[in-house]
Amino acid sequence: MVDGIRDTVRVAVLVSGGGTNLQALINAEKDGRLHPCEIKLVVSSNEGAYALKRAEKEGIKQAVCKDEDELLKILRDEGVDMLVLAGYLRILSGKFIHKFKKPIINIHPSLIPAFCGKGCYGLHVHEKALEYGVKVSGATVHFVNEIPDGGEIILQKAVEVKSDDTPETLQRRIMEEAEWKLLPKACVIVAKEIIKSRKDGREGNL
Amino acid sequence: MVDGIRDTVRVAVLVSGGGTNLQALINAEKDGRLHPCEIKLVVSSNEGAYALKRAEKEGIKQAVCKDEDELLKILRDEGVDMLVLAGYLRILSGKFIHKFKKPIINIHPSLIPAFCGKGCYGLHVHEKALEYGVKVSGATVHFVNEIPDGGEIILQKAVEVKSDDTPETLQRRIMEEAEWKLLPKACVIVAKEIIKSRKDGREGNL
Repeated sequence: MVDGIRDTVRVAVLVSGGGTNLQALINAEKDGRLHPCEIKLVVSSNEGAYALKRAEKEGIKQAVCKDEDELLKILRDEGVDMLVLAGYLRILSGKFIHKFKKPIINIHPSLIPAFCGKGCYGLHVHEKALEYGVKVSGATVHFVNEIPDGGEIILQKAVEVKSDDTPETLQRRIMEEAEWKLLPKACVIVAKEIIKSRKDGREGNL
Repeated sequence: MVDGIRDTVRVAVLVSGGGTNLQALINAEKDGRLHPCEIKLVVSSNEGAYALKRAEKEGIKQAVCKDEDELLKILRDEGVDMLVLAGYLRILSGKFIHKFKKPIINIHPSLIPAFCGKGCYGLHVHEKALEYGVKVSGATVHFVNEIPDGGEIILQKAVEVKSDDTPETLQRRIMEEAEWKLLPKACVIVAKEIIKSRKDGREGNL
């Protein structure tokens, strides 16, 4: 608290799979690179997600939830200030985004506007990039709006595509060289904006 | 000549404007970085192009030509092995490409497939990139086929977009950091393939 204004940002991370981007956020928090963010909650769209195990290991509260109204309730109960989609394979409805009102960010494994949009997720993205024959791909962190991968871009980082890449090797290199670095940085950028907006009395209207 | 096979590749550069990419090729040739390419000819789509002055200064043969049949004749008369579009603002017809038969390459100031295609040239490309809000752009050298900016990609290089960029500052940075470096490299890659194909007796069918 500074001048009666809370100086941390409560983050919920939405996951569906292995949770390597969640791990990058956890590592950043441990190293002090995630301040003013605090990871308060991990919500998975499915029970089997290894990301839940990662959260459990760190003592972070977990939930499994497929219903948007239920998700909204959980986020409100925890006082979540910001939502991070880290390999979340569901598309949030416009209704949800409108109701939640607070910043939602997503990481996408390409340089948007290339290889993005509906149906372009996970390995598909890298398959499409290799099929096209690009020599550079990368990752993008962006705000989430009603258009899949269509919100304002926060950060991007380019990654070289190698001639012998498979979708799997390209996916891994983009994770290591771009995603795991970008996501914590983008969280901090947005969180600082949230705190600034608190001081201006406009939180929720970023 | 090695074993009766010519070991140089005669390049014609097509230009429309200032010719800074042509200059990058000239500089590369002077430094020995363009071998096995030799710039034999510069053809401009308009008389006033400063690129023609650059060619004149270097003693490179120049032509002004708007008609494709005439262009084809000039290229054949000079025994051109490869065509480089360096800021050429006309779209070559499928008929021309089919008749010319030899490799044609183009440089485009974005990371294709982003901000490319018909109507996307010059400053427009950078205006569109800034309007979209990308944080990374770059340049692409690609083979020319009948689809504008649709041919196989040879090289790409990413360039950072800065928050205070104007189309002009972004254009300049992409030229300096990507275009002028990529184009000579791509010419050499393609020229080496041409020489290899001569040895295999398949030149013109790259």
